[in-house]
Amino acid sequence: MPLRYIGEITDPIHKNIKFTLVERELIDTFIFQRLRRIRQLAGAHLVYPGALHSRFEHSIGSMFLAGLAGQTLLEKGYLDSDDMIQNLRISALLHDIGHGPFSHLFEEVLKECTTHSHEKLGERIILDTLITDILQRNGYNPITISSLSFGKHKTRFLNEIISGGLSVDLMDYLPRDSYFSGTEYGKVDYHRIINSLEVTNSKKLGISRSALYSYESMLISRYQMFKSVYFHKTVRSGEVMLLNAMKCLNSVLNLTDLSSLDSFFELHDEKVLGMLCDVRDPSLGPKEISYVNLAKDYKKRELLKCIYEYFSLSRQRQELRPDEAIKNTGEHLKSDKKKRIFDAQVSKLKSIIGKYQASGEQVFLDISSAPSIPLAPKKEEVSSIMVVDKKDEYEKSFDQIPLIYVISGYLDMIRVYTNKENRKFYETIIKDSE
Amino acid sequence: MPLRYIGEITDPIHKNIKFTLVERELIDTFIFQRLRRIRQLAGAHLVYPGALHSRFEHSIGSMFLAGLAGQTLLEKGYLDSDDMIQNLRISALLHDIGHGPFSHLFEEVLKECTTHSHEKLGERIILDTLITDILQRNGYNPITISSLSFGKHKTRFLNEIISGGLSVDLMDYLPRDSYFSGTEYGKVDYHRIINSLEVTNSKKLGISRSALYSYESMLISRYQMFKSVYFHKTVRSGEVMLLNAMKCLNSVLNLTDLSSLDSFFELHDEKVLGMLCDVRDPSLGPKEISYVNLAKDYKKRELLKCIYEYFSLSRQRQELRPDEAIKNTGEHLKSDKKKRIFDAQVSKLKSIIGKYQASGEQVFLDISSAPSIPLAPKKEEVSSIMVVDKKDEYEKSFDQIPLIYVISGYLDMIRVYTNKENRKFYETIIKDSE
Amino acid sequence: MPLRYIGEITDPIHKNIKFTLVERELIDTFIFQRLRRIRQLAGAHLVYPGALHSRFEHSIGSMFLAGLAGQTLLEKGYLDSDDMIQNLRISALLHDIGHGPFSHLFEEVLKECTTHSHEKLGERIILDTLITDILQRNGYNPITISSLSFGKHKTRFLNEIISGGLSVDLMDYLPRDSYFSGTEYGKVDYHRIINSLEVTNSKKLGISRSALYSYESMLISRYQMFKSVYFHKTVRSGEVMLLNAMKCLNSVLNLTDLSSLDSFFELHDEKVLGMLCDVRDPSLGPKEISYVNLAKDYKKRELLKCIYEYFSLSRQRQELRPDEAIKNTGEHLKSDKKKRIFDAQVSKLKSIIGKYQASGEQVFLDISSAPSIPLAPKKEEVSSIMVVDKKDEYEKSFDQIPLIYVISGYLDMIRVYTNKENRKFYETIIKDSE
Amino acid sequence: MPLRYIGEITDPIHKNIKFTLVERELIDTFIFQRLRRIRQLAGAHLVYPGALHSRFEHSIGSMFLAGLAGQTLLEKGYLDSDDMIQNLRISALLHDIGHGPFSHLFEEVLKECTTHSHEKLGERIILDTLITDILQRNGYNPITISSLSFGKHKTRFLNEIISGGLSVDLMDYLPRDSYFSGTEYGKVDYHRIINSLEVTNSKKLGISRSALYSYESMLISRYQMFKSVYFHKTVRSGEVMLLNAMKCLNSVLNLTDLSSLDSFFELHDEKVLGMLCDVRDPSLGPKEISYVNLAKDYKKRELLKCIYEYFSLSRQRQELRPDEAIKNTGEHLKSDKKKRIFDAQVSKLKSIIGKYQASGEQVFLDISSAPSIPLAPKKEEVSSIMVVDKKDEYEKSFDQIPLIYVISGYLDMIRVYTNKENRKFYETIIKDSE
Repeated sequence: MPLRYIGEITDPIHKNIKFTLVERELIDTFIFQRLRRIRQLAGAHLVYPGALHSRFEHSIGSMFLAGLAGQTLLEKGYLDSDDMIQNLRISALLHDIGHGPFSHLFEEVLKECTTHSHEKLGERIILDTLITDILQRNGYNPITISSLSFGKHKTRFLNEIISGGLSVDLMDYLPRDSYFSGTEYGKVDYHRIINSLEVTNSKKLGISRSALYSYESMLISRYQMFKSVYFHKTVRSGEVMLLNAMKCLNSVLNLTDLSSLDSFFELHDEKVLGMLCDVRDPSLGPKEISYVNLAKDYKKRELLKCIYEYFSLSRQRQELRPDEAIKNTGEHLKSDKKKRIFDAQVSKLKSIIGKYQASGEQVFLDISSAPSIPLAPKKEEVSSIMVVDKKDEYEKSFDQIPLIYVISGYLDMIRVYTNKENRKFYETIIKDSE
Repeated sequence: MPLRYIGEITDPIHKNIKFTLVERELIDTFIFQRLRRIRQLAGAHLVYPGALHSRFEHSIGSMFLAGLAGQTLLEKGYLDSDDMIQNLRISALLHDIGHGPFSHLFEEVLKECTTHSHEKLGERIILDTLITDILQRNGYNPITISSLSFGKHKTRFLNEIISGGLSVDLMDYLPRDSYFSGTEYGKVDYHRIINSLEVTNSKKLGISRSALYSYESMLISRYQMFKSVYFHKTVRSGEVMLLNAMKCLNSVLNLTDLSSLDSFFELHDEKVLGMLCDVRDPSLGPKEISYVNLAKDYKKRELLKCIYEYFSLSRQRQELRPDEAIKNTGEHLKSDKKKRIFDAQVSKLKSIIGKYQASGEQVFLDISSAPSIPLAPKKEEVSSIMVVDKKDEYEKSFDQIPLIYVISGYLDMIRVYTNKENRKFYETIIKDSE
Repeated sequence: MPLRYIGEITDPIHKNIKFTLVERELIDTFIFQRLRRIRQLAGAHLVYPGALHSRFEHSIGSMFLAGLAGQTLLEKGYLDSDDMIQNLRISALLHDIGHGPFSHLFEEVLKECTTHSHEKLGERIILDTLITDILQRNGYNPITISSLSFGKHKTRFLNEIISGGLSVDLMDYLPRDSYFSGTEYGKVDYHRIINSLEVTNSKKLGISRSALYSYESMLISRYQMFKSVYFHKTVRSGEVMLLNAMKCLNSVLNLTDLSSLDSFFELHDEKVLGMLCDVRDPSLGPKEISYVNLAKDYKKRELLKCIYEYFSLSRQRQELRPDEAIKNTGEHLKSDKKKRIFDAQVSKLKSIIGKYQASGEQVFLDISSAPSIPLAPKKEEVSSIMVVDKKDEYEKSFDQIPLIYVISGYLDMIRVYTNKENRKFYETIIKDSE
Repeated sequence: MPLRYIGEITDPIHKNIKFTLVERELIDTFIFQRLRRIRQLAGAHLVYPGALHSRFEHSIGSMFLAGLAGQTLLEKGYLDSDDMIQNLRISALLHDIGHGPFSHLFEEVLKECTTHSHEKLGERIILDTLITDILQRNGYNPITISSLSFGKHKTRFLNEIISGGLSVDLMDYLPRDSYFSGTEYGKVDYHRIINSLEVTNSKKLGISRSALYSYESMLISRYQMFKSVYFHKTVRSGEVMLLNAMKCLNSVLNLTDLSSLDSFFELHDEKVLGMLCDVRDPSLGPKEISYVNLAKDYKKRELLKCIYEYFSLSRQRQELRPDEAIKNTGEHLKSDKKKRIFDAQVSKLKSIIGKYQASGEQVFLDISSAPSIPLAPKKEEVSSIMVVDKKDEYEKSFDQIPLIYVISGYLDMIRVYTNKENRKFYETIIKDSE
């Protein structure tokens, strides 16, 4: 039975997004409303003042796209019934429900201080709160929703609709981040890509040849957004400050105490920033006081300076087909060599800076593989995506197709940040080490 | 001497906005950075989730437009030197510096509980804080800036650049509010309007005939934004809740204690919402507790319902030219009559509802002339704006030009809001009174 | 059975427009391809150089919107099966198939010189060419298509989808003309309007209350496009030149000889302009030679001047409900009076100018009711459109709803055009007559 | 003295473009008006129906950007006075004045049948027609204008403003072609790029480091537009048909007889298409008749099929700095090898197909280096562009900057087209040759 919509939401990206009854009930919970206060991009607004958009809009936009993707797969016969469409929409709606304040930054604190992650939190929320009741009362299985939301469904291509290199997550956040930041890099022809979705023989999500250019464009967008927004030098400065303040002061503030979810639900960007700035525990040591000041500086946008930057570009290390293994060896090796050089550089900087940072000095290493950065252009999605060409009866992974091959490639970066006072000192010791 | 720009900001509305040294110093103060946490539209995001943009971006956008306006007036010989351009830009940058949490809502609390206004606060900030030092150190007169920012400069047309029906304020916020809310109503061809600016013989700001259609379009946009965003039924529901919670709990929270500016600078939207929800004073009476709950409901987006709505449309009451006074009398009177009917309706509702509200019941009257609503389409700007036609040597006020006349007109509205529990009760007593 | 799409077309307005097999066969005929060479707006590119778009794109765009409208009506139960959707799409695709060179201008020549119209030509093309064969071979009834395309289907609301004040025709051309001309006036939220379509008890097409603002916006757009594009002073100058050259030289060129359609199919904008400029018949009289020169001047964009302009604005003459008949009489009469004054003015100018024009002088009267102007804001559609409000169980015609009432209204205009040489002469005799 | 503008033109790309008196006089000539009938992209509308835009709008848009570029260079002290700005604007306005019907296609016919080019024709028009008179009467030197328009001015960076990889030509046509075709690939942040223009020590045009990402984006846009529009398989099919019909029938039609310019000025896209279809010379041989039919097929959009396609991607062959010569040898050689393979493939196909084509068969080879394709991503501009970094006092050519290096690269393509009848035959002989 087709979905029955009961209302709609105005969204700058997808215009009018319709919702069903169960979707409205979920959106209306205070658990979901909370996402209005968690920005999609923790620190991007420091450079792009318009980038104040939240996980709330992104979740609703992802729900919309998940519906389109489901509809395409239904029409092409990959889904049996349209029940799955509502499941996909709900899963997309809830895929970020476990995110905490400052999204990926909190995630990194979680990873360091607990055994949790936003996915685990999300599972818990879907399986054990009033969200669970709403799902059940409306006839949906929380376990199905949770498994789809967090990549654990037994049917691989369904998981890939929600997250990964062809996901509605990516197709919503690229244009959305671009729109609100005012950069023009994130245009994605998601209608065409979604219309072209196919399922390969091995049950992976793929696209048909007709959308190859649009997919290529999306890869380019991702690369440009990474450089100009997600890993922007000043944006990351603010994020490094927040990240380290949270890590350090967590022992006092217990941000990651998840014994009950109630206190977690109270946390949001501005609230936590306020908490970090207001710590007044008399027993604070000098290190902690220094990190309270870091948070205060962040609030006034007095940011750390980047004193060192290193870029390394190399081709995508692809899993070669046997017949190509020999002739390509040269490039393969070259790429490996670059990777080794980069890793060595990271180790060296860590050893130089580590002891100062440990003693409470404000000097930080930032690497493009940090978990707090959305989708650096070197994660593994690209090489796993398939082009399905019905006519020629072949399925290829993307990086074996020349046009994509040219633009894909690792982009590794390292940066060192410190405050004005210590700038000269660290510049000198890094220089001396070279 | 032309302005010397030292950097630029990416803005979705005006693309790249350049700034000068003094502008950067002003923007970098914590006083100005504070505007990042005060939304341009207090409650619009409840209906248009993207509308999270802040006074920070709007102030910078206004600065940009003020520069364009100044440049036009300089080129047409209405300004003597380009020194005034920097003054205009700074004044536009600072015209909202006195705004408090939830912008116009706080303004209404100020008006009720103090003798202050955001303009007075703005003056104080420009004349007596580190902003003052920055201005003086860079060679600008704080008194000039303050008078321009708040409509007190001796040269009328300079004031009109900053605020009013042809101002950069309006020309920035209409397209900005439209962009972030995702409505398509706020398109303004501000380039054309600004290029067409003229100064009339009586030193008022006017536009040349060539921009008449663009100006007409802007009037239409304003009208559409008013209806679909600023005075939207659900948007106003949230705002009425915030407004009344602030008014009631101000006695406990001292939000409007402006004896020192330091505490004022700490206030912002999310902070104040947190304060309203967290009041735990043991001496709170039942009325106060009811308003704490009102704030908590707002936070969860459990909004009051609109149970009554009344619209009244009438022509703009224009100041007639003597030769028209007689033949138009009919329409003039009709308009006056409508106004009287409307005013009577307001009085009646106030008397019905007043006693319940006074006793702490959650029932509220909302009128389109509330100070917390931006620019309802009945304020006086329209009739004061002049068209300058060099060739025909005439100056007309806009409402004497047929095309504008057709679309201008008063739009008065009243609404009554209450909570679910009391809905039936108030619906009945209002109905009975008719 | 849902439509089976076999390909898609990239369109700046609707992005990717999918088409079915029968649609591709129709589009691929030389009869339809011919529309690529007939501009949507005959002379608008003289002022807005980008406005070179053709009936081809508009027809395909209308087909797309007709599909959306059909889908909405199907989902709401107003259509029995989705067969009608394909019929509606084809009818929209072919609704302009009978248009000749310069669209509405040729239409006006047809009306003057023959008993034909583009609708009659369209019927003939659908019922008696290879288009007919394609329809039949694919299982569609040419008579059904033709009746839908030209407003003759027995079910009123189906006709109204194709043409009229709520039609896909209007909803496609307003944003399209706006996009290509570069004006920002034609934004139409057609998704919302189409989603809100309803059928009234009397089988008329209506919209639900939720789309009232969007519909109001579309009315405003129409009004703005009329003034700034369709009836723009200079645009009409070029169109008046083409129109009169075609009328005069038709006797030599036989443009309207429709005995066989083959020669009609050869005609397109640039071809006819070439023919008008190249007439070299030795028997041409001085009047004809003068009109050949008029066409040559058009080609070089040496346009006639507008020497007189008269605007008349009045309220929509609505059919009053009985209970309003008395109190509104005043305005009703006033409106009638304005109309009489306007008509008198037209008669007077005709009598002044007529004899000169008849003797071959280049002096022309242009009235906003000319058939060659798209949708002047005074045609009858507005007052016939219904708002359907399920909850309150009422149906209202739009002009009884206050907000629409305020902006609707007649806009009558007259202009006189002549060449530079005679400018002074006609200015004087018109002035003397006043 | 700053330019004195007397009017403005509405343009979808740059909004309101102002013009001066001399510019209006030039635009108003029939020689310039002629560009309204020459499409910017000869065949793109066959696939992207909206792409009907003409050289007229592009020329005016280029004039606008040339003014911005001149203004930037003046403010940075690279120009002595603002006189040069008007010269630059005029030169940009006229840089395409020598283009004939179907732009680059006619260019290719010219190259094959004459010693002319559109540049030579442009020079002649600027130096010896009424354009010359207008320039002189307004105080501008036709020789200066002509040399700037066609890259012959003694000051290298001035030439580079008008044409080349950083030119206003490119910065206008990429977004314009994208806008009208409805693809979203051609977004160019030309404001930022133009604001960043610098002149290197060697008097070449460069950009400052701050615009590196924007420049990189433009390169990506160019690449995407090349693939999706300029060298689109079906677009090129139509263009190959037109090109070969013009080449073959030129002997009968004398399209390239430039003894007098009057007949050249009569030619435009639709006119020439009509001429090609209407050739009725009784002495036509079978080959000529076959090409008349080719033109007729084009008109009906019955296009040739692509039966063979070959892509070759390789890195940009850069001019290495001496110190890099050794370590990069490997990649250098690899690139050379790919080029040799590609060239060999072209030769082989030519020898296979050549004799059939010579005998009048409709089989054609299309290579991405054809002069009728705008800016394939392998022309030399990229490697000649400089980044100027004031702080670090270096100037680098772009391809030595890692990020650009990654995306630059040769894209060579070959295609073979033929008609449906012969499809199988040529497919077989090409296959057999492999």
